[in-house]
Amino acid sequence: MRDLIGRLSTLRHFDLAQSWRSGMPHYPSHPPYMRSLTKLHGDFHLDNGASSASDAISLGTHTGTHIDALCHYSLNGHLHGGGEVSDLQDWTGGIARHGAETMPLFLRRGVLLDVARVLGNSPLAPDTAIGAALLERAEAAAGTRLERGDIALIRTAWGQYWGEPRRFVNGLRMPGVTLDGARWLSERGVAAAGSDTLSFERLPSPRMEVHVHLLVEAGIHILECLALEELSAARVSEFLFVAAPLKLEGATASPLRPYALAETEPRP
Amino acid sequence: MRDLIGRLSTLRHFDLAQSWRSGMPHYPSHPPYMRSLTKLHGDFHLDNGASSASDAISLGTHTGTHIDALCHYSLNGHLHGGGEVSDLQDWTGGIARHGAETMPLFLRRGVLLDVARVLGNSPLAPDTAIGAALLERAEAAAGTRLERGDIALIRTAWGQYWGEPRRFVNGLRMPGVTLDGARWLSERGVAAAGSDTLSFERLPSPRMEVHVHLLVEAGIHILECLALEELSAARVSEFLFVAAPLKLEGATASPLRPYALAETEPRP
Amino acid sequence: MRDLIGRLSTLRHFDLAQSWRSGMPHYPSHPPYMRSLTKLHGDFHLDNGASSASDAISLGTHTGTHIDALCHYSLNGHLHGGGEVSDLQDWTGGIARHGAETMPLFLRRGVLLDVARVLGNSPLAPDTAIGAALLERAEAAAGTRLERGDIALIRTAWGQYWGEPRRFVNGLRMPGVTLDGARWLSERGVAAAGSDTLSFERLPSPRMEVHVHLLVEAGIHILECLALEELSAARVSEFLFVAAPLKLEGATASPLRPYALAETEPRP
Amino acid sequence: MRDLIGRLSTLRHFDLAQSWRSGMPHYPSHPPYMRSLTKLHGDFHLDNGASSASDAISLGTHTGTHIDALCHYSLNGHLHGGGEVSDLQDWTGGIARHGAETMPLFLRRGVLLDVARVLGNSPLAPDTAIGAALLERAEAAAGTRLERGDIALIRTAWGQYWGEPRRFVNGLRMPGVTLDGARWLSERGVAAAGSDTLSFERLPSPRMEVHVHLLVEAGIHILECLALEELSAARVSEFLFVAAPLKLEGATASPLRPYALAETEPRP
Repeated sequence: MRDLIGRLSTLRHFDLAQSWRSGMPHYPSHPPYMRSLTKLHGDFHLDNGASSASDAISLGTHTGTHIDALCHYSLNGHLHGGGEVSDLQDWTGGIARHGAETMPLFLRRGVLLDVARVLGNSPLAPDTAIGAALLERAEAAAGTRLERGDIALIRTAWGQYWGEPRRFVNGLRMPGVTLDGARWLSERGVAAAGSDTLSFERLPSPRMEVHVHLLVEAGIHILECLALEELSAARVSEFLFVAAPLKLEGATASPLRPYALAETEPRP
Repeated sequence: MRDLIGRLSTLRHFDLAQSWRSGMPHYPSHPPYMRSLTKLHGDFHLDNGASSASDAISLGTHTGTHIDALCHYSLNGHLHGGGEVSDLQDWTGGIARHGAETMPLFLRRGVLLDVARVLGNSPLAPDTAIGAALLERAEAAAGTRLERGDIALIRTAWGQYWGEPRRFVNGLRMPGVTLDGARWLSERGVAAAGSDTLSFERLPSPRMEVHVHLLVEAGIHILECLALEELSAARVSEFLFVAAPLKLEGATASPLRPYALAETEPRP
Repeated sequence: MRDLIGRLSTLRHFDLAQSWRSGMPHYPSHPPYMRSLTKLHGDFHLDNGASSASDAISLGTHTGTHIDALCHYSLNGHLHGGGEVSDLQDWTGGIARHGAETMPLFLRRGVLLDVARVLGNSPLAPDTAIGAALLERAEAAAGTRLERGDIALIRTAWGQYWGEPRRFVNGLRMPGVTLDGARWLSERGVAAAGSDTLSFERLPSPRMEVHVHLLVEAGIHILECLALEELSAARVSEFLFVAAPLKLEGATASPLRPYALAETEPRP
Repeated sequence: MRDLIGRLSTLRHFDLAQSWRSGMPHYPSHPPYMRSLTKLHGDFHLDNGASSASDAISLGTHTGTHIDALCHYSLNGHLHGGGEVSDLQDWTGGIARHGAETMPLFLRRGVLLDVARVLGNSPLAPDTAIGAALLERAEAAAGTRLERGDIALIRTAWGQYWGEPRRFVNGLRMPGVTLDGARWLSERGVAAAGSDTLSFERLPSPRMEVHVHLLVEAGIHILECLALEELSAARVSEFLFVAAPLKLEGATASPLRPYALAETEPRP
C-alpha cells in the first residue's frame, strides 16, 4: 500500500472542475446555483472566543461540472437496460434505477482528445460538428488508442468562456459531439465521455441523439462543464482519471470534482 | 501509467458515504436535504421517442457525508493562519479564505481507528469520550502507526443508526473525540480526521474545542457522517483514501463521496 | 372602521390559489417546488413536553399561483417606463426597478370573464385564441363593464387539470389571450389580468407578445395558475379582489394567495 | 360592491412586511433566504426584441415576516385540538393537520398595542417582559378594547434593528410577550397576535410557553418580524388588517405580506 501511495504522490494533479458560485453559467432549464451563509462568524460566540459559519446551497444536479447518471434519458419510455420508466419515477424520490447513487468511484485511465488543438487551438466555432473522423484525428494526436473502460475527455476550448455565462451558454448553440462521434466512442467502449461545454452534444440537437445513444443505448456516462485548459496546456494526453459522484438517491446527475493525475514529465 | 492503473484495479472499493435522500438525518441548525425532479420522463417527447428527467436539490453544506473546510470555525475573530474573519465574509460570497474550493483531492493513506471494535463492537454509548488513550488502543489494534499526512477515520458504529434520524441525532448527545483526542491526532500530523457521527466531536461540547483545535489551530479537516460499517466488517485497517470536495467557492464545507481502497486480502 | 369590517364580514370568500406541494405543475424553465420539514415534532422535547416542527421550501417565483412583476419582461433592452435593463440587473440582487417588492396590496374590484362558460363550460381546446371579441362576449355575460383599475380574471377551465401536471402543462400548448385580447384589456385600463393557465398567453407564442404588451408597454400585471372553478360555479361576476404579493426584493414575480370576496347572494 | 370598494379606497395602506433579500435576519435554526436570477434579460432574445428574466428562491417558512400555522408546536405529542402528531407528520408532505394551507384570508380589525411608545418609544431592552399589565397599559393608550377575533400587533420597536441582522437576532435574547401576556391575549380572544421581533416571545424561553399556549392550547396564530414603525409613527391604533398566507400544504408557517388599512385622519 505504501509503495502504491508513494507512486501516486509523484503524479501531478489537474483539477477538472469549474467552481460553483452565484451567477455561474447554467443550462436554462436547470435551476441555477444559489448559496448563502446560514450564519456568519461572530453571530454567536462561545465562551472560549470560538465562532462558526455555515452555508446553504441549492442547485440543479446538472448545474456546473457534473456527470449524467444513465437514468437522465429514456427512449420510447425505457431506460438503459430496459426498465419501463413510468413505473420507476417519483417527484420526491427520483428515478428508481440507474440513479446517481449507483455511479461508482471512477479511477480509470483517461485520454484527452484535444479537438481544439487539432483544429488550431482556438475555441471551436459554435457549429463545429465533432464526428468520428475528428475524434480519430485527436486520438492520433494524443498518441494512444482509447480502450475499453477508458474515460474520453473532449476539448473544444469553450472552457475559456466559462467566466462569461452568456457566451458560454450562447443561446444554446455550441460545438460538440454528433451521433457519428458518439457511435465512435461507444465502439471504443469508453466508460464515460466528457467535454468542456454545457451540453457535450452539439447544439441545437432536436433529437438529442448523442445523449440517447450514450446514456440509453450504450450505458456510457456523460460529463459536462469540465475545465480542460490546464490539462491541454500541459500537453497531457493520458492520465489517471479520478472522480466520485455524490450518492444522491434517484438523481439524474451529480455535481462532480474530477481530477486528472499525470506523470510529472508529460510527453514533449 | 498502465501498470499503476492495473495495480489500482486490484483494490477493493469501500464506499464511505451515506446517501442523500429526503428525511435523512441532519444537524438541526443546518438546512435539510430537499430534492425534486424538475421534469419527469414523458413530460416532453422528442421526435425519436427520447425523453429526459432532471432534478433540483437544496441542502446545507454540512448535511450528509461531508468535509469541513478550515474556514468553518474561527477563534477570537481569526481564521486558521491568522486572517481577520470580519473582513473575509459575505452572505452570498461566503468566506474568502480557506473556502471549500481550496480543498484538494485527497489521495492519501487512511487508517481506520476502530474504537467501537476495541470496546466490544457495539455502537458506543452517547457519553463515550474518545481521548488519546482510546485512540492509541485503536491504533495498536490497527497494527499500523498514523503518520504525517494520513487520514484518520474513527469508528463509533453510530453509522448503524443512520436509517433512524432521531436516534442518529439523539438530541445532540453522542460519542466522539475530546480535546485530548484531538491533540493526539494533531500531534500525529494527520491531514484530516473523520468519524461516523454527526459531529465528530463528543456532544454536548459547549466550547466546540475539538473543532477549534483541529480546524483553526492545527489546519486539519474534519469529516462527518461517514459510513464505516463495511470497512470495519472487512477488518481493513490501512487503505488508500480517495475523496474530492466539490469546488464550492467560499463554502464552509462540501458534501463528499469518499472511498477507501484496500488490498483484496485484508489481514485476518 | 367597525361598520366597514362588519360589511366585509358578510362577503363570501373564494380562494383563488392552487396549493404548493411536491410534484405540482410548473413551467419547465422555472424551478419546481421543493419542501422538507427541517425538524419533526418529537425530535427535541422541552421540559414541559413541548416540541416543534419547521420547514424549508425552494421554488421558482413563477411556480404556482403567482403575479408577474413588471420587470419580468423587457423590450429592446428596456423595462416598462424606459429603464435600460442591462444596468439594472444582478444575479443575487435581481432587478433594481419594478421588482416584486414594489407591487402593492391589490384591493380592487375584480371581474370574472368566464370565457369557458361562454363557450360551453368545458375546458377550452388548447388552440383556443382569446381575442377581443371573445373577451367582449364574456364581459357581456358578466353583466358589468371592466373599468380603469379593475382586475380581470379570465377563465379557461384549465384549472380542472391542475391535479394532472402533464395535462396542465400539455407540452406548452394551451389556450390563452392573444395580442388582440391583450390590447382590449389595456384599453379597458385594468390594473392586472390573470387566468387559470400556466402562461395566461396562448401557447405556443414565439414572441410572447401578450407578456410584452401587458408588462412592458402597458404596465399591467399578469396572474397565472389561478383557481377559478369555485368562483365560476357560484356564478360570481363581480367581486372584491384581495391579494398581497410577497415583498421579494428585485424578484420578477411573487407567489400569491389571492381571494375574491363576493356578495353572499350572487346574481342568478 | 362599488360603494364598499370606494370606501376601502379612502383608507391609507401601511405595509407591515420586511423585505426578503440575501443577508436578511433569520432565526439560526431556520434556513436563510437565498435567491438568484435563473436567467437575465438579454440571455435570450425573441424575434421582436423581447427578453425575460426569472428567479429562484429558497427559504425557511419562518424566515422573514411570517405567520405560524397552528401545527408549528405540539404539547405532549398532540397538536391543537388533540391530533396525535406522530401519525400526522412526514418529511416531504409536512403536517397533515393545521398546515399553512388551512390558514384563511385575514380581513379583520387590528389593534396596535404600542408597548414601546408606552415605555418611552425607544426599542425595548432585551430583557423586557411583556406581561398582562403592560399589554393592558398599551391597550388603554390605544383607546380601544381588543375584542374576540381581532388581530393584536405588539410593538417593541425592534423593527428599527432589522437592517442590522446581528443586532436584530441578538444572540437570541430579545424582549417579548411572556406567558402572563399570552394568557391575557387568549382571554381577549384574538385570532392572531404578532410583533416586530424574531420570536414574539421573550427570549430566552426554555419552555417556549408563549408559543405553546397560543398555538397549541388557544389556537391563536403568531406573526413575527412585522414592520410596525410606520404604523406607530402615524399614531394608528385601530385598522383593517389584511393578510393572506400562502397555500403551502403541510407547512408550519407561511411568509406573509400583511397590511394595515387605516382611516386617513388618524387620531391625533
